[in-house]
Amino acid sequence: MLKPLGDRVILEVQKEEEQTVGGIVIANNAKEKPQTGKIVAVGSGRVLDNGEKATLSVKVGETVLFDKYAGTEVKYEDKPYLVVHEKDIVAIVD
Amino acid sequence: MLKPLGDRVILEVQKEEEQTVGGIVIANNAKEKPQTGKIVAVGSGRVLDNGEKATLSVKVGETVLFDKYAGTEVKYEDKPYLVVHEKDIVAIVD
Amino acid sequence: MLKPLGDRVILEVQKEEEQTVGGIVIANNAKEKPQTGKIVAVGSGRVLDNGEKATLSVKVGETVLFDKYAGTEVKYEDKPYLVVHEKDIVAIVD
Amino acid sequence: MLKPLGDRVILEVQKEEEQTVGGIVIANNAKEKPQTGKIVAVGSGRVLDNGEKATLSVKVGETVLFDKYAGTEVKYEDKPYLVVHEKDIVAIVD
Amino acid sequence: MLKPLGDRVILEVQKEEEQTVGGIVIANNAKEKPQTGKIVAVGSGRVLDNGEKATLSVKVGETVLFDKYAGTEVKYEDKPYLVVHEKDIVAIVD
Amino acid sequence: MLKPLGDRVILEVQKEEEQTVGGIVIANNAKEKPQTGKIVAVGSGRVLDNGEKATLSVKVGETVLFDKYAGTEVKYEDKPYLVVHEKDIVAIVD
Amino acid sequence: MLKPLGDRVILEVQKEEEQTVGGIVIANNAKEKPQTGKIVAVGSGRVLDNGEKATLSVKVGETVLFDKYAGTEVKYEDKPYLVVHEKDIVAIVD
Repeated sequence: MLKPLGDRVILEVQKEEEQTVGGIVIANNAKEKPQTGKIVAVGSGRVLDNGEKATLSVKVGETVLFDKYAGTEVKYEDKPYLVVHEKDIVAIVD
Repeated sequence: MLKPLGDRVILEVQKEEEQTVGGIVIANNAKEKPQTGKIVAVGSGRVLDNGEKATLSVKVGETVLFDKYAGTEVKYEDKPYLVVHEKDIVAIVD
Repeated sequence: MLKPLGDRVILEVQKEEEQTVGGIVIANNAKEKPQTGKIVAVGSGRVLDNGEKATLSVKVGETVLFDKYAGTEVKYEDKPYLVVHEKDIVAIVD
Repeated sequence: MLKPLGDRVILEVQKEEEQTVGGIVIANNAKEKPQTGKIVAVGSGRVLDNGEKATLSVKVGETVLFDKYAGTEVKYEDKPYLVVHEKDIVAIVD
Repeated sequence: MLKPLGDRVILEVQKEEEQTVGGIVIANNAKEKPQTGKIVAVGSGRVLDNGEKATLSVKVGETVLFDKYAGTEVKYEDKPYLVVHEKDIVAIVD
Repeated sequence: MLKPLGDRVILEVQKEEEQTVGGIVIANNAKEKPQTGKIVAVGSGRVLDNGEKATLSVKVGETVLFDKYAGTEVKYEDKPYLVVHEKDIVAIVD
Repeated sequence: MLKPLGDRVILEVQKEEEQTVGGIVIANNAKEKPQTGKIVAVGSGRVLDNGEKATLSVKVGETVLFDKYAGTEVKYEDKPYLVVHEKDIVAIVD
């Protein structure tokens, strides 16, 4: 298992859909469009100046929108994941 | 539903009006003019250094002016929204 | 009505005076000279690290000098205003 | 009267002396040499993180050295002044 | 023994695997892929603003993913180690 | 007298010694070598976030090493001084 | 004696070893390799936001690894020393 540190969360990224026009795949190149991912692990939060930790606002299992260019790609047991900071998560898709 | 994180709010952006002169559409290109949007969701606030959250000063349903170049465009159930940080909201239109 | 957010204030800007020499208008191009404006609305203050708000030091009705290149122009009921942060206000003209 | 905001002070700047050699005025171009000014008004201090204000260390009537390139020139009742932040004041001339 | 300072940890870096195709070694050049390391020593934590120390979230013996370009290479008793800050550790591999 | 503000100190700078080789003066151009100065006045300290002042660690009369490129040159009663921030003082020469 | 200020320590730097191959000296040019030094004096610590001082984690007599490009060279009684900030010390060599 991967346990993210601090205010990081681990995501299974959902592939950006490609549009197909008459069999031709068209890249979806909207600028800065966020991507969707499903949270598989969350860190225990960043350490505040008073020494306590700020629990994260997202939970395992939630689907989130995140900034497209954020995060670090990791591989674990041959499956790709993305590790992002909580601040890079834009919204929860309920 | 989309639930914004931290100090973010989700807006339905109001189209910039275009001026029409004799049937010709004239782009409205005033520099840095803010745009108007209606708030459809607000985050629970950013975490302060003492671990508490700073509630946002805006509420769902309010119309606001926001910095034109701020925010991230998202799509939800085929409708476009804009997610902005509270600091990018300039004023509430009462 | 427009209600500014945080540490912002809304100003009615006073036109920079133009000098007229023998009927010819001469642009006043002193570098970084501040402009004068009258405050028509003030925000409720920025949120401090302890969660409280720092009330603004300026009041509606006061005339102030502000940094010339600061602020965001807004239009409300066809009248132009300038929204500036309190830190961009240099002095109150008493 | 002009009332400076926050940690600003208003100065009457003392003209840099020019050296005259045989009737020819020679510009005094020492790099970053501070200038002298007399304080005519002080702000009520910047707001600290605990919400209180840090009173300024300088008083009206004092002569100070300040960083040459600091400040904003203002005009009030046809007299020029300089508004600087307290941090730009190097020393008090006693 | 090497004792890291502050929020640093010392790692034994695990060699990036090279793929071998028909006997030819192929460099693994995925961009920004994190590397794996085993923690051999941890610092006592960075000093918080209240004077206390924030204990680290990782322990000696744990295997971690860390940002590829982070850290300082050191040599101790002829063995190479990497000293990284805790913030450069992305996740613990459980 | 000159009274430095905040965390500033005023120094009488000691001339960098020049080496003389066979009567020829050779400039001493070691990179970033600190210079020596004698403290003639100290400020009352910078204001901390709790509103108190952090007294300086140096006293009038002490000889100190300071970063060569730090500070602002001032002239007082025809004598040159250097005003530096405490952080630019490297060590006290006892 | 030299007394370092704040979070500084004074080091006697240990010469980087040069490799000799068949009598030819080969410069050791590993990038960013830290150097070893012995601590001869430590400052009393940086001032925290609550006004107290954060005592240093290193002691006189300890041998430390420090970032190669950190610090200020000083000369005292004809011996060279290096003054570095505590944060530039990577690890203690026990």
